[in-house]
Amino acid sequence: MEPFRIGLVGLGTVGQGLVRLLSRSKPMLEGRSGARWELSWVCDRHVGPKWRRLGAVGMRPRLEKDFRRALRDPAVDVVVELIGGVAPARGLILQALASGKHVVTANKQLLSHSWPQLVHRAQVARRFLGLEAAVAGGIPIVLSLRQGLSASRVRSLLGILNGTANFVLTQMAHRKISQREALKEAQRRGLAERRSWMDTEGVDSAHKLSVLASLVAGGWVRCNRIPCEGIGGVSVEDVIFAQEKLGRAVRLLAGFRFLGGFRGEGVRVLPWVHPRLVPLGHPLAAVHGEYNGVFVETDAAGDLFFYGKGAGAYPAASAVLGDLVWICQQRRVCLHGGAGFTQSSHPVRLESLDGEVFRYFLRLQVGDRPGVLSKVCGVLGRAGVSIAEIFQEATSQGACAIRLVTHSAREERFQKAFHGLRLLRGVRRDPLSIRLLD
Amino acid sequence: MEPFRIGLVGLGTVGQGLVRLLSRSKPMLEGRSGARWELSWVCDRHVGPKWRRLGAVGMRPRLEKDFRRALRDPAVDVVVELIGGVAPARGLILQALASGKHVVTANKQLLSHSWPQLVHRAQVARRFLGLEAAVAGGIPIVLSLRQGLSASRVRSLLGILNGTANFVLTQMAHRKISQREALKEAQRRGLAERRSWMDTEGVDSAHKLSVLASLVAGGWVRCNRIPCEGIGGVSVEDVIFAQEKLGRAVRLLAGFRFLGGFRGEGVRVLPWVHPRLVPLGHPLAAVHGEYNGVFVETDAAGDLFFYGKGAGAYPAASAVLGDLVWICQQRRVCLHGGAGFTQSSHPVRLESLDGEVFRYFLRLQVGDRPGVLSKVCGVLGRAGVSIAEIFQEATSQGACAIRLVTHSAREERFQKAFHGLRLLRGVRRDPLSIRLLD
Repeated sequence: MEPFRIGLVGLGTVGQGLVRLLSRSKPMLEGRSGARWELSWVCDRHVGPKWRRLGAVGMRPRLEKDFRRALRDPAVDVVVELIGGVAPARGLILQALASGKHVVTANKQLLSHSWPQLVHRAQVARRFLGLEAAVAGGIPIVLSLRQGLSASRVRSLLGILNGTANFVLTQMAHRKISQREALKEAQRRGLAERRSWMDTEGVDSAHKLSVLASLVAGGWVRCNRIPCEGIGGVSVEDVIFAQEKLGRAVRLLAGFRFLGGFRGEGVRVLPWVHPRLVPLGHPLAAVHGEYNGVFVETDAAGDLFFYGKGAGAYPAASAVLGDLVWICQQRRVCLHGGAGFTQSSHPVRLESLDGEVFRYFLRLQVGDRPGVLSKVCGVLGRAGVSIAEIFQEATSQGACAIRLVTHSAREERFQKAFHGLRLLRGVRRDPLSIRLLD
Repeated sequence: MEPFRIGLVGLGTVGQGLVRLLSRSKPMLEGRSGARWELSWVCDRHVGPKWRRLGAVGMRPRLEKDFRRALRDPAVDVVVELIGGVAPARGLILQALASGKHVVTANKQLLSHSWPQLVHRAQVARRFLGLEAAVAGGIPIVLSLRQGLSASRVRSLLGILNGTANFVLTQMAHRKISQREALKEAQRRGLAERRSWMDTEGVDSAHKLSVLASLVAGGWVRCNRIPCEGIGGVSVEDVIFAQEKLGRAVRLLAGFRFLGGFRGEGVRVLPWVHPRLVPLGHPLAAVHGEYNGVFVETDAAGDLFFYGKGAGAYPAASAVLGDLVWICQQRRVCLHGGAGFTQSSHPVRLESLDGEVFRYFLRLQVGDRPGVLSKVCGVLGRAGVSIAEIFQEATSQGACAIRLVTHSAREERFQKAFHGLRLLRGVRRDPLSIRLLD
């Protein structure tokens, strides 16, 4: 069997999972791909102690702090980038492609940031850019969208793409603990990344959504243009109230809808990331802990739902290895389009949420004095937002919590009212609004 | 753009759906695959009137009653076989592969019947054998198992693989109608095939399970060795009782478990098809109507769940087209292993259900006279099967229905007891047993 030589850059959680899986499953992977796999290089700033702790058997890679020597090695067939972040990962990938190596990456931040450049370079170099591990961990969603559903038009996508935020929200609901405590638990279990605000503020979900939407739209859906709200303002009281009084669970969702066009002129996409109140009977409410779930609505294949582990070392490492098996089988081939998918040069127009219609849950802390409730109702009424249900509850320190659910309202109008409420005298803490999923 | 010429054999439900999708989505398919698609031949015994009724625009295929002329046309790149059944489909596929054409088929019956021969011929001919449409309609489960999860070991699979039987069971539960009426409704909606006993008796599910298990095991899991029970004996009263008294839904499930080995010596698989009583909160109980749902348990990627439309023309046609896009992109390539997957020559050993442990639901119609219940309990007790719950209800004509749920018992023992109950004097109609899903 001919060799298949891998250069691994980044020995963090996923990198270590990859090495462990590789040492466990080498015969299977070699059988499936028809080549002799070699881990030639492992590069990481702290590679020495990390590699020793791993205790991997049957592998003798060259260990380096600097990845540039691995990139210069002409024997390396594929570079696996698992360092994350934009720099120096982008330079690494571009250089690897330029020197004729295939690339596998789990770096959703970079992909969403430099999509056109990366895809273009892979196409020009006629090398494969594997990105299954960047989105939804062990779920083969990239493969399904790119290949399995290639004969269907995707109309919309809706899902839980961040396992950490979902773990935090389900822990808050089940154990009635604060967001801070839930996040600590996630970190303790190795589910939260160091920069956990990217998980809870929806930034990581937006990165992943950008990758999926770009893939489906055949053009770049810029991450920084995706309206993004996190779960930072959601308290355990809100979660419990939603569950007990409204029969709903809070979930951080990401989604997009195609409004027109297809791969070419007139492609219009409406993407968003924000928390939603999901009915408890809905499949997305049944996605607990670090799991991810993705709904895809298509014209021909109908509605589909994918569910699996979204966080953790092994699901992502398994996705990396799946891409590696594929590359190993296909590497003799100049792939159609190089990167394994085609990209249109037409720009993708992003639509705003303003014209969309939602029902909203609203929570305000107000001073417990006469007239506040009437003022709140006034602000909503003047914006044309009508109230369906209202709950008022005295809290400590002479304050009171107003919680309400509106009837359907246009986003634009509701945001105007919400802005007005923030400015209202007597409204104490930052008010919170969460859209309902109907 | 160079041409990509398709010969379609079989203009039934899926074939017609394929032509409709093709005429609707040609520019998209051509854009994604980088070739000019041509439907060169359409072959069907009644091709003339069927084609006219379709009113397809933009396509001028040669219409033939006999497919042999299409197979002799050297310009045809790929043959799509949608006639179903073993003969003459097998000869058609083998001849197509031998004459250098790729093949896409939705024929699960043939695949499960002639797996080693078909895979071997595709490998020798170095041609692609597309079979996504054979299992679970629009769900890309074949692609996911073959490629997305290629770096994981599948430990078990469990799912609803027959949309017709699932439609019948959910109609019985929701509308409280008999199985016969539900089946008529399915036929009226175009969901049931003519030979609907293959759906309700689990034979179709066994064909599909055989395909999935063979794919994962890397060897033939013979369909006729899969223990298979259908839903023929399940009455609307049983369905309602299960729902109201046990909080469970009846689902026709198919599954397998790997007991040892992997692609090579010692591969042992335990496959089965039978109805199960699924807790109402379980995701498989939420699979309604013609939908399919598949759980896959893997070592590295964790647990996964796939859900989508399992019956109907468009989901299957979309899967056929997905395979065609793939073949069109890859046809210049001699695929690794030819058929797109590797097969071991080692035999797959099938294990029996006898050693498994289940809880059972049991329903008997008995003459309403003293001592019958005691005899029933005696038979179960002597086999070592103990009763957890028992319900007795007088029915018309001086008869009574005994329904009970057992504690966990070995399959072997329960079947012995069940056989004894059938022979018992006073037991009127065929007794029914359904295993619980725990």
